[in-house]
Order: sequence, then structure tokens, then C-alpha cells
Amino acid sequence: MQLEKIVKQGILYDFYGELLTKHQREVYEDLVLNDMSLAEIAEEQGVTRQAVHDLLRRCDKLLEGYEEKLGLYEKFRRTRELTGEIREMAEKCRRSGDLSLVPKIEELSEKILDIV
Amino acid sequence: MQLEKIVKQGILYDFYGELLTKHQREVYEDLVLNDMSLAEIAEEQGVTRQAVHDLLRRCDKLLEGYEEKLGLYEKFRRTRELTGEIREMAEKCRRSGDLSLVPKIEELSEKILDIV
Repeated sequence: MQLEKIVKQGILYDFYGELLTKHQREVYEDLVLNDMSLAEIAEEQGVTRQAVHDLLRRCDKLLEGYEEKLGLYEKFRRTRELTGEIREMAEKCRRSGDLSLVPKIEELSEKILDIV
Repeated sequence: MQLEKIVKQGILYDFYGELLTKHQREVYEDLVLNDMSLAEIAEEQGVTRQAVHDLLRRCDKLLEGYEEKLGLYEKFRRTRELTGEIREMAEKCRRSGDLSLVPKIEELSEKILDIV
């Protein structure tokens, strides 16, 4: 797998792994988290390399389907942006003593609730 | 259904409704959002009252299962608490001009990211 894809699938697994079956999770973790090869996983599971490949493709599709429906990663990304802006505003406010930034903090904080 | 249960199921439906099938969503919305009776839904769908009852019970279990696994409602509840605290701190800070509250805002904002 390309690194970018591994990272993306790892992130989706973080959000939706609980929705996979125990068996799917085991195989997925062997590949993405434990960095095992398809051949190694196949030997461990006593199945063909093709069977492992198919299972992993199905997991990828499931995880991507969940993201399309629930968008938790996208929501996390937007929440991270907003909390970053809040911290930035708070820091500016603290350093400069400029209280005019505080209402902006309140506004950003409300925006977070609209996302999650 | 008891009111408390209807509210709870409505909230879970808000979070996980997308994971149900189109048919499950239609029936669920007729009951919970459109306030139709089981008999009315059964007539509309051309099935027995028992079939509607079974489908709704299955939906309830699915939605509760998703909450057990992903906990989005619980995460939302905690995020709402934290954004509420941020707004409260910001308001106090704005009214009193007391900048000593600002680091607390930064801290609360980081806590949100640990939840979502």
C-alpha cells in the first residue's frame, strides 16, 4: 500500500474499527498497525493470500462507506481547526491583554457544537 | 412508546440514521418524527402491525449498538459541556477584564480534541 493510503485507512480504522467484526479487525491490524505482509497474514490465518486481499479490500470499502455516511474524520478535522483557532485567539488575548478577541472565542466555541 | 424513550431514540437516529437502510429509515421516521401509529404505518406499508413492530425493535437495537460502539451521543454531550464552559469563561473574562481565565480556555479547548 502507498504510505498516504495506509495513513488514511489507519485514521478511518481509528474512527470506525469498532464497527468491523473481530476477525476483520485482527487482519486489518496485522496489516496496517503491525506492518505484516499479506503472505504472513495468510499463513497466520491459514487462508490464501487472495482471501486476505479480498477481506482487506472489503474492510477498506466498509470504512470508506462509514466515513461517507457519518463523516467523523471530516468532523474531527473541522473541530481541530476550530479548537486551534480558539487557542490562537486565547494566546493573543493573553499576550496582548486585548479583550476584544474574547467574543470571537465564544463564537468559535458555538461553531464546534454545530459540527459534532 | 414512553416520551423519554422516544426522545432518546430520536437522538440516536440523528446520529446513526444514515447507517440504517432506506426502508428502515422511512418506517422509523413515520413513527418517531411523523408520530404515526403502528397500525397506520402497517397500512401504509402493506404489512402486518407485528412486522412493523419487529422492524422498529430491530432499528432500536441497531441504533443502540452503534452508540455502544461509537458513543457519538456521549461524545456530543461532553463536547457540549466543554464548549459551555469555554463560553462561560469567555463571558466572565469579558465582563471582569480578568485575563487569568484565558489559560483555562486554552485547556478546555484542548480537552475537546481528546473527546471527538
